[in-house]
Amino acid sequence: MTANVSPVRVAVAQFEPRVGVENLKANGLAVEERIRTAAEAGAGLIVLPELATTGYVFSSRDEAFAHAEAVPDGRSVESFARLAAEYDAYIVGCVVERDGTRLFDTAVLVGPDGYIGRYRKTHLWNTEKLWFTPGDEGFSVYDTRIGRIGLLVCWDIWFPETARIVSQLGADIICIPTGWVWTPPPLYDASGVCMPAYLTTTAAHVNNVFIATADRIGEERGVGFMGNSLIAGTNGWPIDRIAGPDEDTILYADVDLTAARTAPIWNQLNDLHRDRRTDLYDQMLGYGAAPLPR
Amino acid sequence: MTANVSPVRVAVAQFEPRVGVENLKANGLAVEERIRTAAEAGAGLIVLPELATTGYVFSSRDEAFAHAEAVPDGRSVESFARLAAEYDAYIVGCVVERDGTRLFDTAVLVGPDGYIGRYRKTHLWNTEKLWFTPGDEGFSVYDTRIGRIGLLVCWDIWFPETARIVSQLGADIICIPTGWVWTPPPLYDASGVCMPAYLTTTAAHVNNVFIATADRIGEERGVGFMGNSLIAGTNGWPIDRIAGPDEDTILYADVDLTAARTAPIWNQLNDLHRDRRTDLYDQMLGYGAAPLPR
Repeated sequence: MTANVSPVRVAVAQFEPRVGVENLKANGLAVEERIRTAAEAGAGLIVLPELATTGYVFSSRDEAFAHAEAVPDGRSVESFARLAAEYDAYIVGCVVERDGTRLFDTAVLVGPDGYIGRYRKTHLWNTEKLWFTPGDEGFSVYDTRIGRIGLLVCWDIWFPETARIVSQLGADIICIPTGWVWTPPPLYDASGVCMPAYLTTTAAHVNNVFIATADRIGEERGVGFMGNSLIAGTNGWPIDRIAGPDEDTILYADVDLTAARTAPIWNQLNDLHRDRRTDLYDQMLGYGAAPLPR
Repeated sequence: MTANVSPVRVAVAQFEPRVGVENLKANGLAVEERIRTAAEAGAGLIVLPELATTGYVFSSRDEAFAHAEAVPDGRSVESFARLAAEYDAYIVGCVVERDGTRLFDTAVLVGPDGYIGRYRKTHLWNTEKLWFTPGDEGFSVYDTRIGRIGLLVCWDIWFPETARIVSQLGADIICIPTGWVWTPPPLYDASGVCMPAYLTTTAAHVNNVFIATADRIGEERGVGFMGNSLIAGTNGWPIDRIAGPDEDTILYADVDLTAARTAPIWNQLNDLHRDRRTDLYDQMLGYGAAPLPR
């Protein structure tokens, strides 16, 4: 089975992994099942939730280390690579990466020919700061047969800088393994959409880029997850729909990734990227600017 | 009548100005009527739509010049200042500013003691580029008795850098005179909310800042406007509601501006501003980064 290059069918898998080393095997099987289902439905790019093969809410550094693996030479990447080759597809997963004495929350991209690259989450959420090291390799975009694929992880989307940088680096699509936890109320608006889903749609809109976000569901050690996985078009609006908060599902979208390289049809005078006032943005960096009153 | 300092009642006025020098007087009266209504309802900070005293869709540079005035010594700022003194309120308006041979699309802030400051729109939309000069004074935040007030105009919100910079400069609330024109379909989602309203709510959320956006309505020389004025809380969600696309209305919100100086209650480890990875953001500026494939 050979996936199309353009349009490519993108899939985001939303389900409930379970933390605990005793669940590693079951998680691995659950992930494999979603990948097979999506690939057999024709998906050429499949995105998994954050830490889908391990679960998310660790209770200690020791436990986080017990769930860790090497990248690329660990069990998850090897499994993703085997499936990617079998289905001629691209897969974005996310694992607890061990590098010596350091752990990273790492998104990985594999393709039909094996491991392509990784992104170590740069903005850490809550207790992740207790076991993970903030990403030390910056932001990455990988050129593939189906297009240029950028990677972010979960809480990164709260920082508009991240999607901006990745799209400035040329991403056609940003793939975001995610474990959005319950935020302060209101969690959802009247449409059942949570704030981070809107962070995703607006980031796609202002950057003219596709974004495929796979979130998890369920509750783990008292931490609730929000679902709302989605694939946003370059105009920002969700393609098809936003997944419900508790749904075990896979969403699909057939997208022409070249749309991300074409300026949106606003008018003859505007282009979102060209119109940036980079001459004025040095104030964003927190240096060279007036002293901050905060 | 003395407006409260905290909480302060914020008002955004949504209505339909009409372009054409023959309408300047009627626009001025329409603006004065909204300011009086809002101030008499207790508003201490009143935001008007973009170019509310002139209308928006000019057909030539000559016509734009005919609508222009000096800042601060022009008719609109003088009128705003007179009303601000009468009601002990702060007013954010937006005028065609003439400075020698240059025109700017300029937001102005006046208070009970007169003119405070201006912001010349830095990101110009469509035919604005044919008559206006891009703002040459960067971004501004003004310290007032009711709190720190930042200014942006309309299309600026498409650039996440703008709200980020203004909030980094310490704004408690960002006031945005706006004339959102119809964007490519879909214009609104199933809730009747347009994409730029979401750009506003998400900008408030990720920056932990209030945003008061006053949009206009109606159609001018074939250009349609989107309404959807709103006041977003620091959690991003609209306070009260989002105005309809055709409503002639004033929305109010009683806000405690100090909330913008207090980190949101996420957890004990995260703070949206502190957690920024400014060590990695130089890629946003378009220099110092890898060559861009775009």
